[in-house]
Amino acid sequence: MNVIAQAIPTPADIPGVAHATWAGQAQGLKQLSVWRQSMQPGAATPAHSHDCDEVVLCLAGQGELHIDGRVQHFGANQTLILPRNSQLQISNTGALPMETLGVFGATPVNTFLPDGEVLPLPWSS
Amino acid sequence: MNVIAQAIPTPADIPGVAHATWAGQAQGLKQLSVWRQSMQPGAATPAHSHDCDEVVLCLAGQGELHIDGRVQHFGANQTLILPRNSQLQISNTGALPMETLGVFGATPVNTFLPDGEVLPLPWSS
Repeated sequence: MNVIAQAIPTPADIPGVAHATWAGQAQGLKQLSVWRQSMQPGAATPAHSHDCDEVVLCLAGQGELHIDGRVQHFGANQTLILPRNSQLQISNTGALPMETLGVFGATPVNTFLPDGEVLPLPWSS
Repeated sequence: MNVIAQAIPTPADIPGVAHATWAGQAQGLKQLSVWRQSMQPGAATPAHSHDCDEVVLCLAGQGELHIDGRVQHFGANQTLILPRNSQLQISNTGALPMETLGVFGATPVNTFLPDGEVLPLPWSS
């Protein structure tokens, strides 16, 4: 079946983050992963990097992108361009949940802490 | 700048199709392309394939996916999983414009006709 439902994000083992993997290796892909996430006000990802390109579409809310030591603000209907190996952290700086769609040029999505150690993800990617 | 606007699709040189490339090589990526498209009722893509994985999120409307000789129906809030080298055609079978987000595991996105000839795209991919 090539047509599938879009699961509602459920709470993940990162405080304030709900996650659903909409497409990836479990759906038969080899090069792409698509994630739908919701982040509560004040929550943030860990500082991390991926060894693949990432694009985040902000669907609602507003946040802050820390990338390679710089800070950029973003909001609904803006796109984040995150080339592979960028040092990243994303936080919700608004008063409402921040809704995002994340797409990655790999599946599974390898994720690393700033010291280069692997960061195991609490979901199938 | 890693935070960019999301362009509104504009008419492309395929009848009934409007297109905007939201992310790809022009934005500094090497592995991903993200397209936003709108397709008028009755319109269809050419029969084609890509040598990379593709995922299509249907945002609104309803359509028909022809893939490797089979037909599947889809609508708003469903996801199409399109492994690389699948033979594809997508049409809008509804009464309203069909709105989609397409993501690809490559940039540019190589596209081929059923006979294997390259299909030049009328947009930067």
